[in-house]
Amino acid sequence: MSIRIGIFGYGNLGRGVEAAIRQNSDMTLAAVFTRRNPDSLTIQTEGVPVLAADRADEMADAIDVMILCGGSATDLPTQTPALAAHFHVVDSFDNHAKIPEHFAAVDRAAAHAGKVAVISVGWDPGMFSLNRMLSGAILPDGADYTFWGKGVSQGHSDAIRRIEGVVDARQYTIPVEAALEAVRSGSCPTLTTREKHTRECFVVAAEGADLARIEHEIKTMPAYFADYDTTVHFISLAEMREKHSGIPHGGFVIRSGKTGLNAEHTALIEYSLKLDSNPEFTASVLVACARAAHRFAQAGETGCKTILDIPPAYLSPKSGEELRRSLL
Amino acid sequence: MSIRIGIFGYGNLGRGVEAAIRQNSDMTLAAVFTRRNPDSLTIQTEGVPVLAADRADEMADAIDVMILCGGSATDLPTQTPALAAHFHVVDSFDNHAKIPEHFAAVDRAAAHAGKVAVISVGWDPGMFSLNRMLSGAILPDGADYTFWGKGVSQGHSDAIRRIEGVVDARQYTIPVEAALEAVRSGSCPTLTTREKHTRECFVVAAEGADLARIEHEIKTMPAYFADYDTTVHFISLAEMREKHSGIPHGGFVIRSGKTGLNAEHTALIEYSLKLDSNPEFTASVLVACARAAHRFAQAGETGCKTILDIPPAYLSPKSGEELRRSLL
Repeated sequence: MSIRIGIFGYGNLGRGVEAAIRQNSDMTLAAVFTRRNPDSLTIQTEGVPVLAADRADEMADAIDVMILCGGSATDLPTQTPALAAHFHVVDSFDNHAKIPEHFAAVDRAAAHAGKVAVISVGWDPGMFSLNRMLSGAILPDGADYTFWGKGVSQGHSDAIRRIEGVVDARQYTIPVEAALEAVRSGSCPTLTTREKHTRECFVVAAEGADLARIEHEIKTMPAYFADYDTTVHFISLAEMREKHSGIPHGGFVIRSGKTGLNAEHTALIEYSLKLDSNPEFTASVLVACARAAHRFAQAGETGCKTILDIPPAYLSPKSGEELRRSLL
Repeated sequence: MSIRIGIFGYGNLGRGVEAAIRQNSDMTLAAVFTRRNPDSLTIQTEGVPVLAADRADEMADAIDVMILCGGSATDLPTQTPALAAHFHVVDSFDNHAKIPEHFAAVDRAAAHAGKVAVISVGWDPGMFSLNRMLSGAILPDGADYTFWGKGVSQGHSDAIRRIEGVVDARQYTIPVEAALEAVRSGSCPTLTTREKHTRECFVVAAEGADLARIEHEIKTMPAYFADYDTTVHFISLAEMREKHSGIPHGGFVIRSGKTGLNAEHTALIEYSLKLDSNPEFTASVLVACARAAHRFAQAGETGCKTILDIPPAYLSPKSGEELRRSLL
């Protein structure tokens, strides 16, 4: 019996979920929900209905798990609790500081409705969080390091686009190789913001715009760029489209710890991702977690969960017996 | 209330568990059990009893979780089921081919006694298995690669020591950098045994021994060396003791997968370990899993589990709330 998935929101992430479902033979796409006019939307899966977001509740019996693909700023804080009243849900809420608040709201709604919710799924929060937690539990005497990139930061790209005279922009976050090597040496260095990452910006300026002013505004922008070594390249719109249309990302989570009676030995645990498509990978994690939500539901569990609560085998379509034989 | 741990077997792994317990403030060492004469053993923790292995059952009320530190060849297949009749247990059974059989025997004993057992804990099987499983669940369209080293292989070192004229030997397994890079390129290469690892041997020969014969016997040894590019260095006993007394190890688990509607994007997940002390790290994983066994027991669960069944948060001393706030 296939797990029937609903996609709520059809942007980059929703399209990624649609693609990921095709790679998992125990799942089928049941419906896509959109706040746009459903008739205006063409999806990639034949025969699957596209419905208005406000008609989701009508499909409660046809969907086993709803995957929410909206944004963390304004969509998910209201959508996830609202949908958890009718569906088992999975979201990618990624505002780290507000996770406890979001968890509480979703847990209340899901527990009340007897549903399961898995929140903050993806890679950070998500797989990176899981690795920080696992590595810290194994090596309590140690330090965590997280590096992001090389990859496109949507928030930083948007910040540049808001500058007067900027037509388009793409910002790459790049980990500093020397900092990575210092961490890998086991020396547990203390690293400043500037020492960990650099920022590289590709900017299309309006004709006649003051390039020196734009570059200065970028490099001195508080929080976003002022604390980093930032480089700015002005390019044509054609070059932007040709070379910077992808959404790659990735990063590194490293735990540098000590073992032994006198902490005389170093142990390094490193987890890294290198992703051609950030939203497609996030979608792949969401889909595996939808399977876990379904398993939780079958086990009679309710309420809100995170990746830290999921028995790993719940993420796999394979049986425990098969996993032990082939993967352990 | 501290989790009271028993150590069953006091070799390198048992000593590692003793050291790891000190790093975890929610645990205390309750007793060490040995098959040697208990009076002959001096442990590193003051005031903790050293008892004969066959008296373990007497301590059932004083121990929350027993960590088994014996070998997989002959000790654990009988010890783990036997002790699971009286204790919640954790072991590091690492004979991959026999895991299903060991699981069945331990599950029967633990379920019958109402105890929890966590088997095959460490890094391979253990953290490497977990990463193979997680990465495969996220990226079903892809291939797994596991590389070991650089590190000391006990089995290969022992095999060399059995050759006539060899006084001592240490064998390092070394992943081939070019193979690692080929995997990281996302090309999903098919790699032969020889292409993945090389073997480097340091050998102390008896005075007057035929070095050419020893080297030939090593390099042509079936299963152990014949399929690898092997180098042999003859060194003095002094050099062996000075430079090769450590037990370092490590390795890499890489998943190279595809995302996107037409598998047009590559995603790479890499997990790696670099360990000064292989047994101390294995011990650190055992201790974290002892905490998980205790949590399972508190939740009323019984029977045999592996790392694939453990909700990650069970491994950490922190509360769910604290984990969500600080690590998610």
